[in-house]
Amino acid sequence: MYLPEHFAETDPARIAHVIAAAPLACIVAQTETGLVANHIPLLTKPDGSLIGHIAKANEMHHLIHDGQEVLAIFTTADAYISPNYYPSKLDHHRHVPTWNYITVHVHGTIRFQHDRQAKHAAVGLLTRVHERRVNADTAWKMSDAPADYMAEMLENIVAFRITPTRIEAKSKLSQNREERDYDGAIRGLQEAGAETLARAMMERKQTER
Amino acid sequence: MYLPEHFAETDPARIAHVIAAAPLACIVAQTETGLVANHIPLLTKPDGSLIGHIAKANEMHHLIHDGQEVLAIFTTADAYISPNYYPSKLDHHRHVPTWNYITVHVHGTIRFQHDRQAKHAAVGLLTRVHERRVNADTAWKMSDAPADYMAEMLENIVAFRITPTRIEAKSKLSQNREERDYDGAIRGLQEAGAETLARAMMERKQTER
Repeated sequence: MYLPEHFAETDPARIAHVIAAAPLACIVAQTETGLVANHIPLLTKPDGSLIGHIAKANEMHHLIHDGQEVLAIFTTADAYISPNYYPSKLDHHRHVPTWNYITVHVHGTIRFQHDRQAKHAAVGLLTRVHERRVNADTAWKMSDAPADYMAEMLENIVAFRITPTRIEAKSKLSQNREERDYDGAIRGLQEAGAETLARAMMERKQTER
Repeated sequence: MYLPEHFAETDPARIAHVIAAAPLACIVAQTETGLVANHIPLLTKPDGSLIGHIAKANEMHHLIHDGQEVLAIFTTADAYISPNYYPSKLDHHRHVPTWNYITVHVHGTIRFQHDRQAKHAAVGLLTRVHERRVNADTAWKMSDAPADYMAEMLENIVAFRITPTRIEAKSKLSQNREERDYDGAIRGLQEAGAETLARAMMERKQTER
């Protein structure tokens, strides 16, 4: 992607945070039938690989061959930035609109897994993470479902693992602006209801700028 | 993409609404250097084509040749759906977690435009739409900026137009669930703070189910 230096995100913790905060990746690959894209929730394993699972009926595991390059795209928040947000506009009017956003692109090779153990592990890990977030102490567990039903569900999916080969991350958050304009953009976003992006810009300001 | 019939979105008005509500597309293409993706705000023209512009420094207009197939991916909202959201879980426990989301994939051919008129039109149209949304009566206009500055800005961009060849849209919104579980998912999403998705599910229920 187009990645000017001042927008490049290189902090591994911030990159990991984007993937954890917006786990629904759009996985794209070039196939014989053209570009194919599917939205799939992913989870980062301690070794850095990304795991997930798809329906067996999803043609993706036929169209994409084992070891093929795919691109997993994660995006947390985005919003239009009006020149009106910048106080310095009144001084010189030398501003144009732009768009702020946070994205992580993981290029990697994919391998599909058809064995029950890999499928059980993928579902179990994803479930634990997301149930903890939304249900805390009352988290749903795979063992809550009848064994025959769970076996049938696992039969109907294919697990996979993406081994990253290159990660590009961009935090386009007005960090190339003078401070009063940066603060003005945060205020403008708050007034426009773009809270997630405004919060990300505030956090960035607190840690560095 | 994997598109079971009950999740397929075929209503042109709903598809247009997704693109208008979440205009920051991720444009993906296969190039000699691998898959390339860039987030770019797009606007639908009355003839159905999508227009936008990129920085001239963005390699995209060198890596992708005129007339090449690209994929523009739009996504409005997504969230994890816990089995705990379904009241029928207490009856039979035959539920697993899933993820709800709304996405539109526009496959099309791209043509880059280097003439001043096309660039001015692209910036002007995008600006009008977004300024109206965030600033209404106080909308910023291109003519607010000094002419020399605006000419310099236009010099530094490349416009483009994507002519759609195939559009696939998916509204994965629990519409395959019984009504009490559909309503339960809406409540669960509201409690989890996934307001945009909850609202989309409520709107869908009002218009059809």
